[in-house]
Amino acid sequence: MNRSDKVLPGACPLPVTNYEQVTLAHGSGGKLTHQLIQQMLLPQFRNELLEPLHDGAVFSVNGTRLAFSTDSYVVHPIFFPGGDIGELAVNGTVNDLAMCGARPLYLSVGLILEEGLPMEDLWRIVQSMQRAASAAGVMLVTGDTKLVDRGKGDQVYINTSGVGILPDGVCIHPGNVREGDKIILSGEIAVHGIAVMSVREGLAFETEIASDTAPLNGLVQSILAASNKVHLLRDPTRGGVAGALAEIAESATLGICIHETSIPVSEPVKGACEILGLDPLHVANEGKLLAFVPADEAEQVLQAMLAHPLGAKSAIIGEVVARHPGMVVMETAVGGNRVVDMLSGEQLPRIC
Amino acid sequence: MNRSDKVLPGACPLPVTNYEQVTLAHGSGGKLTHQLIQQMLLPQFRNELLEPLHDGAVFSVNGTRLAFSTDSYVVHPIFFPGGDIGELAVNGTVNDLAMCGARPLYLSVGLILEEGLPMEDLWRIVQSMQRAASAAGVMLVTGDTKLVDRGKGDQVYINTSGVGILPDGVCIHPGNVREGDKIILSGEIAVHGIAVMSVREGLAFETEIASDTAPLNGLVQSILAASNKVHLLRDPTRGGVAGALAEIAESATLGICIHETSIPVSEPVKGACEILGLDPLHVANEGKLLAFVPADEAEQVLQAMLAHPLGAKSAIIGEVVARHPGMVVMETAVGGNRVVDMLSGEQLPRIC
Repeated sequence: MNRSDKVLPGACPLPVTNYEQVTLAHGSGGKLTHQLIQQMLLPQFRNELLEPLHDGAVFSVNGTRLAFSTDSYVVHPIFFPGGDIGELAVNGTVNDLAMCGARPLYLSVGLILEEGLPMEDLWRIVQSMQRAASAAGVMLVTGDTKLVDRGKGDQVYINTSGVGILPDGVCIHPGNVREGDKIILSGEIAVHGIAVMSVREGLAFETEIASDTAPLNGLVQSILAASNKVHLLRDPTRGGVAGALAEIAESATLGICIHETSIPVSEPVKGACEILGLDPLHVANEGKLLAFVPADEAEQVLQAMLAHPLGAKSAIIGEVVARHPGMVVMETAVGGNRVVDMLSGEQLPRIC
Repeated sequence: MNRSDKVLPGACPLPVTNYEQVTLAHGSGGKLTHQLIQQMLLPQFRNELLEPLHDGAVFSVNGTRLAFSTDSYVVHPIFFPGGDIGELAVNGTVNDLAMCGARPLYLSVGLILEEGLPMEDLWRIVQSMQRAASAAGVMLVTGDTKLVDRGKGDQVYINTSGVGILPDGVCIHPGNVREGDKIILSGEIAVHGIAVMSVREGLAFETEIASDTAPLNGLVQSILAASNKVHLLRDPTRGGVAGALAEIAESATLGICIHETSIPVSEPVKGACEILGLDPLHVANEGKLLAFVPADEAEQVLQAMLAHPLGAKSAIIGEVVARHPGMVVMETAVGGNRVVDMLSGEQLPRIC
């Protein structure tokens, strides 16, 4: 698939023979998303700030290091157990900034409303955004509202972008990942994806599964207070833990080994995943993070995470290894090994 | 319509008896847009940075003043004479930052793609964004791509947000507008709106009318070099010159007087407006600005604007007056006076 060496200047760098049109899978957080970014967007926009493919860009202005991040939210439905698109949009960008090690300060709000959206629904979403901003300690300082005709949108899409400040000494970066790093996961996975899928598919589970959407900047502060040697933070949203780890392994050209039995999954989510035929490793999270930490600091970071309400079920789930570079391998519960890869198709469209 | 004093806590503050649903007119840049912002979004998100309702927020981080702005682009069609949605999205946010008096530095790009978008179209747009960024001297440093199902979008929607730095001493702000200020317009109006409408309506004019989309940060630099007493800059996009002036008059509680004969409109645009039944004052511009300048500095600012390629047809079109506060009045070509107001309905949906 890597045709970048054969591409004529100005020609579309994606294999249009395979994909003449954009497909839903290009938004899955899986292989096609990765391909779109790696082969089209990144080479075109290439610059040293975009290069690291972090959750946000980090740059200095007059000696102050800032992080800047953007995310659009197209989740369907817009209201789901445990949250709504407004809360998700605020927490999502707060989290992207936090994953850069930044303290989130200011957010922008771009609303794309579909003609016919009930005014009361908009009002609920707007209130929810303000509540989420207050809870995360950020301010919504600038905004924009656009309208599209009926049938050219889906109730509401929201973009939030955010600016945060990096404390001195913090350097969280995909390029820092080293062999021997321990990988700590902050809690039970696949909750958000299953919460959204359950309403979308009209499934009623015995226990309602509510989205884990939450602002992680407080948890990140605890982590950074426990260790100033954290190498990388990543919130495994679209594409799930599998997608996040596969991307990190590829960019670091190192192997990642994870242990199935150490990955926290709640019983209701496990059951729902079985019913829906989903692998929880690929299901989106909106209130969890992965921390890559040198082995000798892992225990103190784990303890700090366990002491935080949003990290109470944290666990060390694996480590970075020199073998199988670029690849994530899971030791399964039954003692075997399997490769954990990005999804090649589309599993859960419009999950965030 | 002002019911804010009667609203119960938690109740939707918009008169739902009139508008139970969001309508296209809520995106017109006219009265309903204004109402949505003033009565719902602003009171809910209220904070001192959002308050000024500027084109962006201005705040200090470690003593450095930054501007931060966001805009989503839903223009239809995505390619039009003189530009495309990608170029528009870059220039639009560059201009919003420039209107704050800031030097635009970094932009984010949030793409919402509709399943089925031809890959070649995406490629054209991505290239166009990069070209526009280079031309404006900004970097696209962080991004996000989301996919929505066929029929839930319209090819591509783009959000750009941006961060810029404010030079020392610059204070451009709606609150600065004073009686006696001269209003300078940087060139011929209504060009962008007519360019888009002409393709949308399938009209062929003798002379092709190409969008005026352009980055205005260079022109703003020339203006600020000519005077450090510029009170306000505003790019009259959606809602046109009329919408921008009406909003400024209202927020400043001062009157604005403009002179029809001094407002530059090209002959082809004038003709097209007549055919389409549009008032050029309400038609969107994407490469023009309005500068509010103290009378004794107006001439030097005008000369600086005339010397810049993007301001070659600049003209003083009016002044700020104490009479008729909150209202814009135009002296017409035939010697009468008429009130220039925001549009109450929807005239040109999805023009940007």
